Amino acid sequence: MIDADMTLEETAEGIRSMGIRGAGRIARAAVEALDVHAASLPAATLDEFRAEMRRAADLLLATRPTAVSLPNAVRSVMRTLEADIPLDEVRSAFHEAARAFIASSTGAVDRIGEFGARHIRDGDVVMTHCNSEAALACIVAAHRQGKAIEVFATEVRPRNQGLLTIRRLNDEGIPTNYIVDSAVRTFINEADLVIVGADAITVNGAVANKIGTAPIALAAHEARTNVVVAAETYKFAPLTTLGDLIPIEERPAAEVLPDEVAATLPHVRVRNPAFDVTPAEYVDLIITEVGAIPPSMAWLIIRDYQGWSIEQFHRPFERA
Amino acid sequence: MIDADMTLEETAEGIRSMGIRGAGRIARAAVEALDVHAASLPAATLDEFRAEMRRAADLLLATRPTAVSLPNAVRSVMRTLEADIPLDEVRSAFHEAARAFIASSTGAVDRIGEFGARHIRDGDVVMTHCNSEAALACIVAAHRQGKAIEVFATEVRPRNQGLLTIRRLNDEGIPTNYIVDSAVRTFINEADLVIVGADAITVNGAVANKIGTAPIALAAHEARTNVVVAAETYKFAPLTTLGDLIPIEERPAAEVLPDEVAATLPHVRVRNPAFDVTPAEYVDLIITEVGAIPPSMAWLIIRDYQGWSIEQFHRPFERA
Amino acid sequence: MIDADMTLEETAEGIRSMGIRGAGRIARAAVEALDVHAASLPAATLDEFRAEMRRAADLLLATRPTAVSLPNAVRSVMRTLEADIPLDEVRSAFHEAARAFIASSTGAVDRIGEFGARHIRDGDVVMTHCNSEAALACIVAAHRQGKAIEVFATEVRPRNQGLLTIRRLNDEGIPTNYIVDSAVRTFINEADLVIVGADAITVNGAVANKIGTAPIALAAHEARTNVVVAAETYKFAPLTTLGDLIPIEERPAAEVLPDEVAATLPHVRVRNPAFDVTPAEYVDLIITEVGAIPPSMAWLIIRDYQGWSIEQFHRPFERA
Amino acid sequence: MIDADMTLEETAEGIRSMGIRGAGRIARAAVEALDVHAASLPAATLDEFRAEMRRAADLLLATRPTAVSLPNAVRSVMRTLEADIPLDEVRSAFHEAARAFIASSTGAVDRIGEFGARHIRDGDVVMTHCNSEAALACIVAAHRQGKAIEVFATEVRPRNQGLLTIRRLNDEGIPTNYIVDSAVRTFINEADLVIVGADAITVNGAVANKIGTAPIALAAHEARTNVVVAAETYKFAPLTTLGDLIPIEERPAAEVLPDEVAATLPHVRVRNPAFDVTPAEYVDLIITEVGAIPPSMAWLIIRDYQGWSIEQFHRPFERA
Amino acid sequence: MIDADMTLEETAEGIRSMGIRGAGRIARAAVEALDVHAASLPAATLDEFRAEMRRAADLLLATRPTAVSLPNAVRSVMRTLEADIPLDEVRSAFHEAARAFIASSTGAVDRIGEFGARHIRDGDVVMTHCNSEAALACIVAAHRQGKAIEVFATEVRPRNQGLLTIRRLNDEGIPTNYIVDSAVRTFINEADLVIVGADAITVNGAVANKIGTAPIALAAHEARTNVVVAAETYKFAPLTTLGDLIPIEERPAAEVLPDEVAATLPHVRVRNPAFDVTPAEYVDLIITEVGAIPPSMAWLIIRDYQGWSIEQFHRPFERA
Amino acid sequence: MIDADMTLEETAEGIRSMGIRGAGRIARAAVEALDVHAASLPAATLDEFRAEMRRAADLLLATRPTAVSLPNAVRSVMRTLEADIPLDEVRSAFHEAARAFIASSTGAVDRIGEFGARHIRDGDVVMTHCNSEAALACIVAAHRQGKAIEVFATEVRPRNQGLLTIRRLNDEGIPTNYIVDSAVRTFINEADLVIVGADAITVNGAVANKIGTAPIALAAHEARTNVVVAAETYKFAPLTTLGDLIPIEERPAAEVLPDEVAATLPHVRVRNPAFDVTPAEYVDLIITEVGAIPPSMAWLIIRDYQGWSIEQFHRPFERA
Repeated sequence: MIDADMTLEETAEGIRSMGIRGAGRIARAAVEALDVHAASLPAATLDEFRAEMRRAADLLLATRPTAVSLPNAVRSVMRTLEADIPLDEVRSAFHEAARAFIASSTGAVDRIGEFGARHIRDGDVVMTHCNSEAALACIVAAHRQGKAIEVFATEVRPRNQGLLTIRRLNDEGIPTNYIVDSAVRTFINEADLVIVGADAITVNGAVANKIGTAPIALAAHEARTNVVVAAETYKFAPLTTLGDLIPIEERPAAEVLPDEVAATLPHVRVRNPAFDVTPAEYVDLIITEVGAIPPSMAWLIIRDYQGWSIEQFHRPFERA
Repeated sequence: MIDADMTLEETAEGIRSMGIRGAGRIARAAVEALDVHAASLPAATLDEFRAEMRRAADLLLATRPTAVSLPNAVRSVMRTLEADIPLDEVRSAFHEAARAFIASSTGAVDRIGEFGARHIRDGDVVMTHCNSEAALACIVAAHRQGKAIEVFATEVRPRNQGLLTIRRLNDEGIPTNYIVDSAVRTFINEADLVIVGADAITVNGAVANKIGTAPIALAAHEARTNVVVAAETYKFAPLTTLGDLIPIEERPAAEVLPDEVAATLPHVRVRNPAFDVTPAEYVDLIITEVGAIPPSMAWLIIRDYQGWSIEQFHRPFERA
Repeated sequence: MIDADMTLEETAEGIRSMGIRGAGRIARAAVEALDVHAASLPAATLDEFRAEMRRAADLLLATRPTAVSLPNAVRSVMRTLEADIPLDEVRSAFHEAARAFIASSTGAVDRIGEFGARHIRDGDVVMTHCNSEAALACIVAAHRQGKAIEVFATEVRPRNQGLLTIRRLNDEGIPTNYIVDSAVRTFINEADLVIVGADAITVNGAVANKIGTAPIALAAHEARTNVVVAAETYKFAPLTTLGDLIPIEERPAAEVLPDEVAATLPHVRVRNPAFDVTPAEYVDLIITEVGAIPPSMAWLIIRDYQGWSIEQFHRPFERA
Repeated sequence: MIDADMTLEETAEGIRSMGIRGAGRIARAAVEALDVHAASLPAATLDEFRAEMRRAADLLLATRPTAVSLPNAVRSVMRTLEADIPLDEVRSAFHEAARAFIASSTGAVDRIGEFGARHIRDGDVVMTHCNSEAALACIVAAHRQGKAIEVFATEVRPRNQGLLTIRRLNDEGIPTNYIVDSAVRTFINEADLVIVGADAITVNGAVANKIGTAPIALAAHEARTNVVVAAETYKFAPLTTLGDLIPIEERPAAEVLPDEVAATLPHVRVRNPAFDVTPAEYVDLIITEVGAIPPSMAWLIIRDYQGWSIEQFHRPFERA
Repeated sequence: MIDADMTLEETAEGIRSMGIRGAGRIARAAVEALDVHAASLPAATLDEFRAEMRRAADLLLATRPTAVSLPNAVRSVMRTLEADIPLDEVRSAFHEAARAFIASSTGAVDRIGEFGARHIRDGDVVMTHCNSEAALACIVAAHRQGKAIEVFATEVRPRNQGLLTIRRLNDEGIPTNYIVDSAVRTFINEADLVIVGADAITVNGAVANKIGTAPIALAAHEARTNVVVAAETYKFAPLTTLGDLIPIEERPAAEVLPDEVAATLPHVRVRNPAFDVTPAEYVDLIITEVGAIPPSMAWLIIRDYQGWSIEQFHRPFERA
Repeated sequence: MIDADMTLEETAEGIRSMGIRGAGRIARAAVEALDVHAASLPAATLDEFRAEMRRAADLLLATRPTAVSLPNAVRSVMRTLEADIPLDEVRSAFHEAARAFIASSTGAVDRIGEFGARHIRDGDVVMTHCNSEAALACIVAAHRQGKAIEVFATEVRPRNQGLLTIRRLNDEGIPTNYIVDSAVRTFINEADLVIVGADAITVNGAVANKIGTAPIALAAHEARTNVVVAAETYKFAPLTTLGDLIPIEERPAAEVLPDEVAATLPHVRVRNPAFDVTPAEYVDLIITEVGAIPPSMAWLIIRDYQGWSIEQFHRPFERA
């Protein structure tokens, strides 16, 4: 899925334009691009290498503001540059960190699928939204275990990622109902469980995910239907422990209204936020690769599993 | 907007295919078509006239199951046929009833606009959904009174009636924000008021309206934002007083997924209900042409303003 | 079911001991007993007849405090005594009023069954509680219409009226699940609808019914499941319009704990209220023989259908 | 309590400055002032008399915008001026209407007290707010019936009307707890019932009353404590049936912050709304002199008891 | 209370038939039975000893599916078998682990009682359900400290464990009200606090406990009454961190309906789940022997106090 | 702000009478007073020094029961006395601990301000209550960063600490609205965020703060407005992990009602609790100097940052 020959600029553009999408895929693509870039970088000194790699990292970090998987992934490889060791050892450490991240990200999805599948009972009807690798891993794993399940999947305006989801479910032979986004409340009483992914999870367990997730969670809460979020630990946003808010990316108007139509409507402005925020009280469980947790445990994931300390937060790179 | 030359069949097809849409417009078009039909009907006897008109009425009644304005309108003219008077007097009474219904339906929207505009304060931000004549009448009237208002209007998948709404608002010069349906919870905290229309209102004040209305009302309730329904009295569904449920029309799959795509997805089924039901507890006020009422007053509208008695309900025509 | 030969005292005792139970059956038994009593009463003057009948009415009224069907029924026949006409005409008027009440009470149940059955869809799972004639009429009528329905019925401690309910449902061949009262929240997500009866309905739509009804309604509300109350119009409590509270009958301790066990437990007191009160906000619809209404329409039932005026409320008999 | 010698201007000033306060007292004072004014008015013609009385009415109507008792009371006497009869007969009709209004207003409070007292049980703890004649009538009547009750009364910033309330309760010998306004949630679990008055009730049952009422109702709702509103029928606001919002009077800053302090704080603005609005869903019952009703019955009070028809609403005087 | 002479099979049968009941008593009885079994086991080799003990453990584990105290207790002693040391040292280590578990389990209840008693104020009314050692320890300790408390205890259908509870409370001289299960909502407003036990607590703080617990918690939440769960740390279910759901044991129909009655009702099926699940949002505090925690801290109890690591979860024994 | 010359008794009196107020200021003043006291204490032996310092600590601890900052602060310095080292070394260690506490307390407020300011967006309207150093630090820091913010501040009856708050905000040039306490629900829909301080936070995240905080949090929850609590880690109450309830201080009646008025009202009792308790479910985030956490993480703050172990809790001093 990741093309190692893609240049750094191509990867950045691919993320920006949503050719590469999904928080996990974005993270792996960015690390892959940095790895390739590092391998071919003709730096003479360690300082030169560091400076150039930081420029490269900044290019990638600037593409999408909301998905925290991107800075988390970039940081996890970039910190190998800080060691005071010879340039070739740094190159080698960087490469190893990049491969390790990609392997662990892929493994995390499998593990989440294994855990999440246990949460789905034979006969369950599951509602999902957008096209989350981790959420689909749970559904597919349950289906492969022979459980008779059925899915409700949404269209996901304005980019229609729901089409990718129903293709995937159809390929697995899972009976699937396809509905417009605004039909979620109508069908929630037919669902036993909601499973969605996450783009970022804050320190208090709020979940930033594709626009439309919060209305599903609200409707599920109204109908006493459990909501499960499937998310790798690198989706948790460390800077929210310092009070930061998750920035919500607002994408181009043309995704919603063609420019030629918009031009005829001077009093109309398109608002196109790509994500919304589901409060922790509507989320029953977050399934990560280190186990299932309640949303309020997000702080511990950041502290004990991502390994952030307050001091680190104050170093300039991480905030930049 | 109503073409008097349109044949009965054309009108029926126009309603079915949603070329003619909106509960008020459907009601008036149906009455107009019956009026034209009656005028040109070469019936020799009163019985023949009645039989033919009933066939015509049945044709129209079969087009859309949810919108109660249609049977209410048809019934309001058809009952003139029951008098035991000469055929030409019946023809004349029928024509007068038809003109009266159309005039009163148009007048009702104006009156609702007048009442609803008082409910909008200078500086208010109003959220609306779909393309309701009555709801827009309130918004436009408030704007014309010089109040500085702003609107959030939704896309309204799968038929995109939101485009009609934003064109109308743009023509009036009202600043409007256009959003996808699943963004309503994100923006509800910026709204002071929600105003929507209705396709049918049950005896206990539940409101059947375009799919997506109930999620807005739920999000508004969660955020302590008032929800106002603008609806003519012929939107109230008399048979719900006898325990009837409002049938929810499920429209063709192709409105959501092109047939050629659907053909490649054998495990995927499209579910396409055209309406949803908002419970009375999420509706603060219904504005009708006989005044503003709380939703639980629906019974009185049916009994005291539509003039139904329990005995009438048991006559065969009305249930057919 | 009503034994015309049963003496007045036997009927009173039968109601008190719950040999005769269910608000509708109590009402009809009381009127039957008064009718028989009146027929055989050897009164010489109208005043004597009135005095004796009032003593008889008082005997019956003292049996059960909560079920308002009892005073409503008694009042509906007793007011024939107030006319200033010869004794034999009064006797005759009384008899006719008694027969009319019994016929109308029985007819009311049929009509409620007809209305309520429309509210049950093919495939629905219905939860009920206690042994309500009117609620069962809805369920049985839906089943007889060929709808495939399934029922959850509760045990109904401490008198186990649930046994009567499951026998009735079994006789009809309706698939029924029998559960303890405290399992209602566990199974509410499997139910599409709750249908229960009522012993009394207050002016603001609160429903006094068998203990355990309010927890079901609460659990249904939590799970977005609709609650329908099936109740004849004589279940509405007119004196609540004057501020009266519904008295909740507390029945003998021995219904819960055998006296010999209780005797060994000096620090233990049994509390045995026979009814609880479900607030109107948890009730979606009340189905009466004059149509389905929202609970807040109770006042209109009392005013327009029971025909009470404020002046009447102040006459001594009604309050006694 | 009403001084018949007070001039019209003095009464207007007394209402404006809150020397005369409480919706019932304001209504009676205004009618009294008009009655006195009419008696001494040296008008030569009916037209002159009408014009002068309208000026007088306008003077009074301009004093307080929120309390609907004022325009309702004024209208109830002013409409006698519209008859086409000789001046002296109009004078006489006006005087009779004024006396009738005052008698009925006073009688209404007694009747509400009688009804409301039935709603208070022996041993109940009642929370009240501000200094409502009607609410206190219920509490005092229950106490005089020998019920052992206890009251929580609030301070009622910024005008401290709570002092009047605790004096009244103390004079009756009712054990009373006096608390600051922000302690209502702390003590609500010790209360069995909340009883408050109303300044205006909208067509959908929302209750405008002294600032602080809505927080009590919200806390009561959170704690499953019933809220009763005691209000004469002339507190219902007829124009809200035409979409009107209740205007909320904002009173002088100096009631909250002395002018000399405010002068030292240029960046600080005092906001001093005298009333807030409690939504109908937090009100269990409204007790009026024509009986107890649920809040959603407000429309019927306006239509059937105040006698408004839609046509009347469009006459210029009422809206002025 | 535990009979050391009871054979392994007798203990298993005692647990299955609920002769031995209560999560703590079951745990101690199982460990006691294994200890006795190990002492008398004539194994020649360590492998033989291990195999036989695992068979014994499996016999016990198969008795009741929901109560997690059983596998937690068995695991806590069985892991001593894994050491690579001589057979007699393993025997001795096993015995010590068994005695330590029993002592710590008993001590845990005392400690919970001490902590929980502090949470009960003088004058409090406490509602409890079923017959929880830990919950009763809190109540009894508060009473013994001289606090004037009163208890509401439920019947607990279908096994009537409430009788055990009221006997215990009566023996302590604590004033107790005994009510049917479906009366909990009626009396919750008289309670200041709910204290119940737990059979299993999931990683997100949901509490599996005797059927009827969730309705109490729901009613308490509706009435703003705090709910405290008293539970030893071995009640927390470690495998829920891997996505496992708590299996809910469904017990024999005959507990609810005698077989001879059931035989006459072919369309009736008894559903008899022994437990229900209370969501964390209705639980204010869990009191364990290592301190009081909010429910969402369950993960930390499993990780930091039970000492589970993700790797351990994947070893075959624990899942068996 | 802290006067080092103030004697121990003066400090104790200053805290008791609220001359010194605010949980942070109280903590620092107490430590300062102990430091001064220790420096001038003419103790001959370590035991004498310890005994005298404990007496001094007890004097301070007795002043205000609710604010946990006081015992937490006192304990943090008093534990230096327990070392078995020479008296002068103990004196020196005590002095160092005192200076460290004061420096860290002051630094904590700055750090909270830095974190909290990030949570406030340009254009936000913030509601606050009472006069919290930490909450104001967030607001002022956001303002100084150039964000255009506006504040709603309450009066805070009965001690009117709101005056201090509006003076501080005015001095900073922040546009501020000043309202009575009971107007918070009216204005909550104009606020984007609520920020308040805390006097004590329990192990399950409930927040004891100035009376009136819980009604704001409740109104914010009703209106989907986030509530942030700004609190140093020494505000978390360690003994609540052992089941302790936070004692709520009830202050003199004369703060609410002058003694001379109270004397005339024998049936009136003033209830004057100084604090109320906001449940964790209404708090979105707690901002401490070690980062932002959800309320349910309180246990970890007590365990991992205050460094309490269960054993310490059982030592006599801490409970005294």
